[in-house]
Amino acid sequence: MLDDKDFIKSCDVPGPTKEAIRAIILYKSEVTSKDKVVDCGCGTGGITCEFSQRAGEVISIDTDPEAIDVTSKNLKKFGLGDNVTLINDNGSKALKNIKDIDIAIVGGSGRQLENILDIINENLNSKGRIIITAILVDTKVEAINKLKDLGYNPKIMEVNVSNGRVLDRGVLMISENPIAIITAKKR
Amino acid sequence: MLDDKDFIKSCDVPGPTKEAIRAIILYKSEVTSKDKVVDCGCGTGGITCEFSQRAGEVISIDTDPEAIDVTSKNLKKFGLGDNVTLINDNGSKALKNIKDIDIAIVGGSGRQLENILDIINENLNSKGRIIITAILVDTKVEAINKLKDLGYNPKIMEVNVSNGRVLDRGVLMISENPIAIITAKKR
Amino acid sequence: MLDDKDFIKSCDVPGPTKEAIRAIILYKSEVTSKDKVVDCGCGTGGITCEFSQRAGEVISIDTDPEAIDVTSKNLKKFGLGDNVTLINDNGSKALKNIKDIDIAIVGGSGRQLENILDIINENLNSKGRIIITAILVDTKVEAINKLKDLGYNPKIMEVNVSNGRVLDRGVLMISENPIAIITAKKR
Amino acid sequence: MLDDKDFIKSCDVPGPTKEAIRAIILYKSEVTSKDKVVDCGCGTGGITCEFSQRAGEVISIDTDPEAIDVTSKNLKKFGLGDNVTLINDNGSKALKNIKDIDIAIVGGSGRQLENILDIINENLNSKGRIIITAILVDTKVEAINKLKDLGYNPKIMEVNVSNGRVLDRGVLMISENPIAIITAKKR
Ligand SMILES: Nc1ncnc2c1ncn2[C@@H]1O[C@H](CSCC[C@H](N)C(=O)O)[C@@H](O)[C@H]1O
Ligand SMILES: Nc1ncnc2c1ncn2[C@@H]1O[C@H](CSCC[C@H](N)C(=O)O)[C@@H](O)[C@H]1O
Ligand SMILES: Nc1ncnc2c1ncn2[C@@H]1O[C@H](CSCC[C@H](N)C(=O)O)[C@@H](O)[C@H]1O
Ligand SMILES: Nc1ncnc2c1ncn2[C@@H]1O[C@H](CSCC[C@H](N)C(=O)O)[C@@H](O)[C@H]1O
Repeated sequence: MLDDKDFIKSCDVPGPTKEAIRAIILYKSEVTSKDKVVDCGCGTGGITCEFSQRAGEVISIDTDPEAIDVTSKNLKKFGLGDNVTLINDNGSKALKNIKDIDIAIVGGSGRQLENILDIINENLNSKGRIIITAILVDTKVEAINKLKDLGYNPKIMEVNVSNGRVLDRGVLMISENPIAIITAKKR
Repeated sequence: MLDDKDFIKSCDVPGPTKEAIRAIILYKSEVTSKDKVVDCGCGTGGITCEFSQRAGEVISIDTDPEAIDVTSKNLKKFGLGDNVTLINDNGSKALKNIKDIDIAIVGGSGRQLENILDIINENLNSKGRIIITAILVDTKVEAINKLKDLGYNPKIMEVNVSNGRVLDRGVLMISENPIAIITAKKR
Repeated sequence: MLDDKDFIKSCDVPGPTKEAIRAIILYKSEVTSKDKVVDCGCGTGGITCEFSQRAGEVISIDTDPEAIDVTSKNLKKFGLGDNVTLINDNGSKALKNIKDIDIAIVGGSGRQLENILDIINENLNSKGRIIITAILVDTKVEAINKLKDLGYNPKIMEVNVSNGRVLDRGVLMISENPIAIITAKKR
Repeated sequence: MLDDKDFIKSCDVPGPTKEAIRAIILYKSEVTSKDKVVDCGCGTGGITCEFSQRAGEVISIDTDPEAIDVTSKNLKKFGLGDNVTLINDNGSKALKNIKDIDIAIVGGSGRQLENILDIINENLNSKGRIIITAILVDTKVEAINKLKDLGYNPKIMEVNVSNGRVLDRGVLMISENPIAIITAKKR
C-alpha cells in the first residue's frame, strides 16, 4: 500500500491519483503478474507505481518531460520500476507501437481522448480492459460515448472521498475532488 | 444572494459557511421578518448576514473577538446589520439572557454543545427551530443524541457539494468539505 | 418549508426535486414577489410549489399531461397555485409566447435543451436568471456549453445529499442521487 | 473481480458491501496469500469472498444463521471457500479463540464494537491490521475513539459512490449510501 503523502509531487504535474481511486482502479483492472499495462498520462506516477508492483510490464507515457521525471523519481523512491518503460511522447503517437495490451489506463489525454481510444481499441488484446479516469465533466461524456461507438459496454463510477483528520476535539472530514472511473472490457 | 467569494475572510476565523449550506439552512429555518434569530458561533458572519436580510432581529455570539470583528465588517460590506446585535461571549453564557427565540443556529460550540442546547431549549419559543451545523463527526452524534434526550425528533442531512471551474478544456469539479445540518422543531 | 414526503407522487412522473436542491434553487434564483417564473418540465410540481409561494407569477410547462395533473394536485394539497398557470405542451413551443421572464427553471427538456435555452435567452429580461437541473452527465455538459455559446458565464454546482434515518442503534445515512444545478444571469 | 449483481442476496441480511468499498478494503488490508483474516459480521459474504481469493485463511463470523448460510452460498457460487471457516456465533465470543490474526475486518458488531475491538487488539499479531466499515454515524465515532484508547493511530475515510446507468438519452448517476472505512495498524 502506497500512502498519498509519500509520493514526490510537482507543482506542474497533476497527481498522484488518490489512494481510494488507485484501489478501485487496481480492483477493476483484475491485474495479474502476466499483464502488459499502459499508463497514458502517467503524471506523477501514482498509477504506474501501483501497477509496477502487480503487473508483468508497465509502459508509461506522458507528453510532459517533467511528468516522466517525477514518475521516475517515485518509482525509485518506492523501490519499483524494473518492469516499467517510460516514454516521453504523446499517447496518440506512442500507443501506436504498443501491441497486445492487457490493461490500458488513460489518466490524461489532452483533448485527444477519442483518437487515443481508437488506437487503444486497435492494440488491446481480446481479454483487454480499458480504464479512464476523468476529472472533467466533459471527459466523462466523451469517454462513455466513444466507448459506446467502439462497441463497448462502458461503465462509469463516480467517487467522492473524504478523509478524517483526527483532532483532539473530534474528527474533521476533508474532501477530495470527485473523480469518475470509466471502464470497458473487450468482448 | 451573497457570493462566497465576496465575504471578508480571516485566517483565524472559520467560515463563511458555504452558499449551498446557507441556502439549505435558510430554507429549513422558515425564517420570516418577524423572527428573532440567534447565531451562536457566528464566525465570519456567513449565517448572520443571511438572516440579517430576512429576520426581524439577529443576535450573533462568538467567543472570539476577531470573529465578532469580521462579522461586523461583513455586515457593513453587504450593507446589512441594522437588526443585528453582536455579543463577544461564550454562547453558554450569552444565550441565557436571550428569551423567546424563534430560530437558534449553532455554528460553533467548542465542546459545550450539550450545555448550549439545554439553554436554547429553555429559551426557544413554542414555534422555535434549532439548526446545528457540524463539521466534526463527533458533533453530529452529540447533537442528535442531545436533541433526542431533550424530547425532539431531530433530522440530519449531510451535504457534499462540488463547484465547477469552467476551463477552456472542460469543467473541473472542486469539492467542498462535507457538512451536516441537524435540525429540530419544538412540538 | 415543504417536506419531500408530503408531495403526491406518480410512478410515471419524475420528482419532486428533493428539499436541499429546491432550497439551493430558491436561493440562487433570488426570487421576489414581483418575479415572473417559468418552470419548464414541472414534473410533480416540486419547483412550481416553491415558487408559487414566493414569486409573483409562475408558468409551469410539461409535455406529459400526467405531470400537469400531479403538479395541479400538489398545488391544491399545499393550498397554493392562485398565481400558477399550467401548460401541457412542449417547452420549446410554449416558451415562445412567454415574454419578460425573470426566472427560467429547466427541470426537463427531453433532448431539446439547446433549443429551449435559445428561446429562454430571447425571452429573459435584462435582470433574468436561468437555472437548469441535471441528473444526466450529458445534460451538464450540454447546458454549460450552450450557455457559454449564448454569451453567459455559467456556474455549475453538484450536490450529493444524504439524510439520516435516526434508528435506535444509531443514525443511518441514506443517499439521494447527485444532481447538478447550472445557473446563469443576463449581463 | 466480483460484480455486485452476482452476489446472492437476502432480505434479512445486509450486504454485500459494494464493489468500491471492497476494493478499498482489499487495498488497505495489504492482504497476501499468507494472511489469516477474520471477517466479523460477514453478512452475505461480500468481504469473505474477496479475501478467500487472496488470503491464506479466512474465518467468517456472524450471529445470524442466515448470514452464515448466504455467505456459504456465495462462496460456492464463486467457486471459493476452501480456505474459509464459517462460525455462527457472536464475534465477541468467537474471536476469543482466534489467535495470531493478520487482518481483522469488522463489518457488523451490534453494539459490541468496543468489546470486539478489545478482543481483536489482544489477538492481532504485531503486523496486524484492523478495518471497520461503518454505516452508522455513531459507529464511526465509537470506532475512532476506541482505537485511540487502545493506542492506535486510526484513519477514517468516507466514501460516496455513484454508478452510471447508461441510457439512450444519457448517463444517469445512481448513488450508493455513504460508508466509512476506519483503519488501524499495530505499531
Ligand atoms: N495526449 C497525451 N499523451 C500523453 N500524456 C498526456 C496527454 N495529455 C495529457 N497528458 C498527461 O496526462 C497527465 C494527467 S495527470 C495524471 C495523474 C496520474 N494518474 C498520477 O497518478 O500521477 C499529465 O501529466 C499530462 O501531461
Ligand atoms: N461556546 C462558544 N460560544 C460562542 N462561540 C463559539 C463557541 N465555541 C466556538 N465558537 C465559535 O464558533 C465559530 C465556528 S465557525 C462558524 C462559521 C460561521 N457559521 C460563518 O458562516 O462564518 C468560531 O468562530 C468559534 O470561535
Ligand atoms: N421538452 C420538454 N418540454 C416540457 N417538459 C418536458 C420536456 N422534456 C421533458 N419534460 C418534462 O420534464 C419533467 C422532468 S422531471 C421534473 C421534476 C420537477 N422539477 C419536480 O420537482 O417535480 C418530466 O415531467 C418531463 O415530462
Ligand atoms: N456481535 C456480532 N457478531 C457477529 N456478527 C454480528 C454482530 N453484530 C452484527 N453482526 C452481523 O454483522 C452483519 C453486518 S452486514 C455485513 C455485510 C458484509 N460485509 C457483506 O459484504 O455482505 C450482519 O449480518 C449481522 O448479523
